[in-house]
Amino acid sequence: MTKINQIRHFLSQQDAKLAIFSDPVTINYLTGFACDPHERQLFFFVYRDLAPVLFVPALEVARATSQLDFPVFGYIDSENPWEKIKAVLPTTDSPTLYAEFDHLNVTKFQGLQSIFSGRFENLTPYIQSMRLIKSEDEIKKMLITGDYADKAVQVGFNNISLQVTETDIIAQIEFEMKKQGISKMSFETMVLTGNNAANPHGIPGTNKIENNALLLFDLGVETLGYTSDMTRTVAVGKPDQFKIDIYNLCLEAQMAAMDFIKPGVTAAEVDAAARQVIEKAGYGEYFNHRLGHGIGMDVHEFPSIMAGNDLVLEEGMCFSVEPGIYIPEKVGVRIEDCGYVTKDGFKPFTQTPKDLLYFEG
Amino acid sequence: MTKINQIRHFLSQQDAKLAIFSDPVTINYLTGFACDPHERQLFFFVYRDLAPVLFVPALEVARATSQLDFPVFGYIDSENPWEKIKAVLPTTDSPTLYAEFDHLNVTKFQGLQSIFSGRFENLTPYIQSMRLIKSEDEIKKMLITGDYADKAVQVGFNNISLQVTETDIIAQIEFEMKKQGISKMSFETMVLTGNNAANPHGIPGTNKIENNALLLFDLGVETLGYTSDMTRTVAVGKPDQFKIDIYNLCLEAQMAAMDFIKPGVTAAEVDAAARQVIEKAGYGEYFNHRLGHGIGMDVHEFPSIMAGNDLVLEEGMCFSVEPGIYIPEKVGVRIEDCGYVTKDGFKPFTQTPKDLLYFEG
Repeated sequence: MTKINQIRHFLSQQDAKLAIFSDPVTINYLTGFACDPHERQLFFFVYRDLAPVLFVPALEVARATSQLDFPVFGYIDSENPWEKIKAVLPTTDSPTLYAEFDHLNVTKFQGLQSIFSGRFENLTPYIQSMRLIKSEDEIKKMLITGDYADKAVQVGFNNISLQVTETDIIAQIEFEMKKQGISKMSFETMVLTGNNAANPHGIPGTNKIENNALLLFDLGVETLGYTSDMTRTVAVGKPDQFKIDIYNLCLEAQMAAMDFIKPGVTAAEVDAAARQVIEKAGYGEYFNHRLGHGIGMDVHEFPSIMAGNDLVLEEGMCFSVEPGIYIPEKVGVRIEDCGYVTKDGFKPFTQTPKDLLYFEG
Repeated sequence: MTKINQIRHFLSQQDAKLAIFSDPVTINYLTGFACDPHERQLFFFVYRDLAPVLFVPALEVARATSQLDFPVFGYIDSENPWEKIKAVLPTTDSPTLYAEFDHLNVTKFQGLQSIFSGRFENLTPYIQSMRLIKSEDEIKKMLITGDYADKAVQVGFNNISLQVTETDIIAQIEFEMKKQGISKMSFETMVLTGNNAANPHGIPGTNKIENNALLLFDLGVETLGYTSDMTRTVAVGKPDQFKIDIYNLCLEAQMAAMDFIKPGVTAAEVDAAARQVIEKAGYGEYFNHRLGHGIGMDVHEFPSIMAGNDLVLEEGMCFSVEPGIYIPEKVGVRIEDCGYVTKDGFKPFTQTPKDLLYFEG
């Protein structure tokens, strides 16, 4: 069943006639048409019984029409988009409508409410559940994005030196990736040295790489419409034994979670599998975030791997496993791989080794 | 009057007690605290009669507390943020509340509605009007971001060669900017050669730079919390006279608009000042977007410089002036400067020359 027919099937089950998509990522997922409308309007209308309609800024009409085999309508900046939508749609009649409540802002929602008299329901849970299980094709793409993340972190490793700053290394990583055709990192690349890594949301700057300390890389790329995300922490010079112990504890926690994952266990149980390793060692308070987040076309998506989430894992779900231990002014470690649930386990998208790597200080 | 007191004054005038901010950029504008909560919750509650309250993900509490002199509360991923908000706020009682409807998504809105029983009104127009007029300090920052954009485009010029691709030049630009401490471009840098520039939303790729053609650069940087945005189109080798004529026509249109701008004229009149130059020459249909967009902490913000917008310009407003002429398969030109309205005119943030520059093919 095509994705659009899945939506139609969902609408039939809900006794609704129309689903309205506003998130550009969802629209790309459903149609293959990638478009960033900025503050302009972009909507994809999927009817249960009629051809879908894409509504885009005028500038995008030609490109959309060339890619899609259903009607595309545009509006120019001086037109009222709501009136235009009403004019071009085959019908605005549906007692119940579905819209992406987690994406749609209140102003756009009010715009839609001015056109449609039906009752709105939230489409986000359904589209999240569709996106939650990745197809073989999607997993192939995510393995490629993971491979690029491995390459990117290797560029980082190749540029470690006490003479350079965090920002210098980031510049080199992103330069090499651009040269390899990666137009976009999936988030701002992090390279954090010493105590800066002890802050889970530390910001890279002009700090020179510290000697006898740990150095943290957190990065990912966006390609083929999918994202990657990985973290590695390495040693520069000879960090003291305490830092090495914390590193190995974090790795033990990550491996415990990755070994535990298989269809049938819950997200909360996976989080606990890692957390109890760190708690047992007495450092639970320094692991102050969830174990992981879903990943796919968005770098953060459904599901959240955390306490309280009783979602039962299934084959094809993709998420990060990223325990961290942040002891202020002392040491910061995070180790992260994203991967996918297989029929009996978990396979990572990234392959960079995790035994503590040492670089010359 | 401080910005927070301006909000309080607005609340008094509206007979409301509470304004709720959800846009991280607005929160940064009001507090100086920059935070990207990703899919987590971030809210800033400004009471008319009580101290404001910032609500952030737990990871951000320490950093926020160190920067701000009012109460900061956090929540961890396994807590229900709405219950936590209700528990920490001094009061949820206000018959009327203001929230940022252009930012707040429907799910968050419903979360707030579960806590507050009052009637919600849209805060976006007021905050837009506050952000619309830039202070001297903001304009100083925007001159600095503009200066970096000039530097960035110069890096692009220095790397023009028939041996390299659009992407190669982008990689060089962003590398040099990163080395100069610019962690973020304000949008994906565009370098478009030949016919690719004839598409107003062309996407850079592995096209080698064309000879005897025009080459378009559209870029900006983000620094000090503010953004820049500029476009230059230059000649590589010896483009034919038609391309040169179209370039000069676009420049004439841009200069006509920039000369026209002063306090008292409307946004629509400024758009028309440029558009009529291009229309008179018979190319109106190829200038298929608005003349400009507001700029500040966001690269696209209020106001829109376009037909139908009767906003009267005032000193301190900042926006782009960017006519473009895109004739498919033939030629594409855009020339863009952002600037600010002075007491009797308009001053650009970017200074790169605009007489057609020629580079060796």
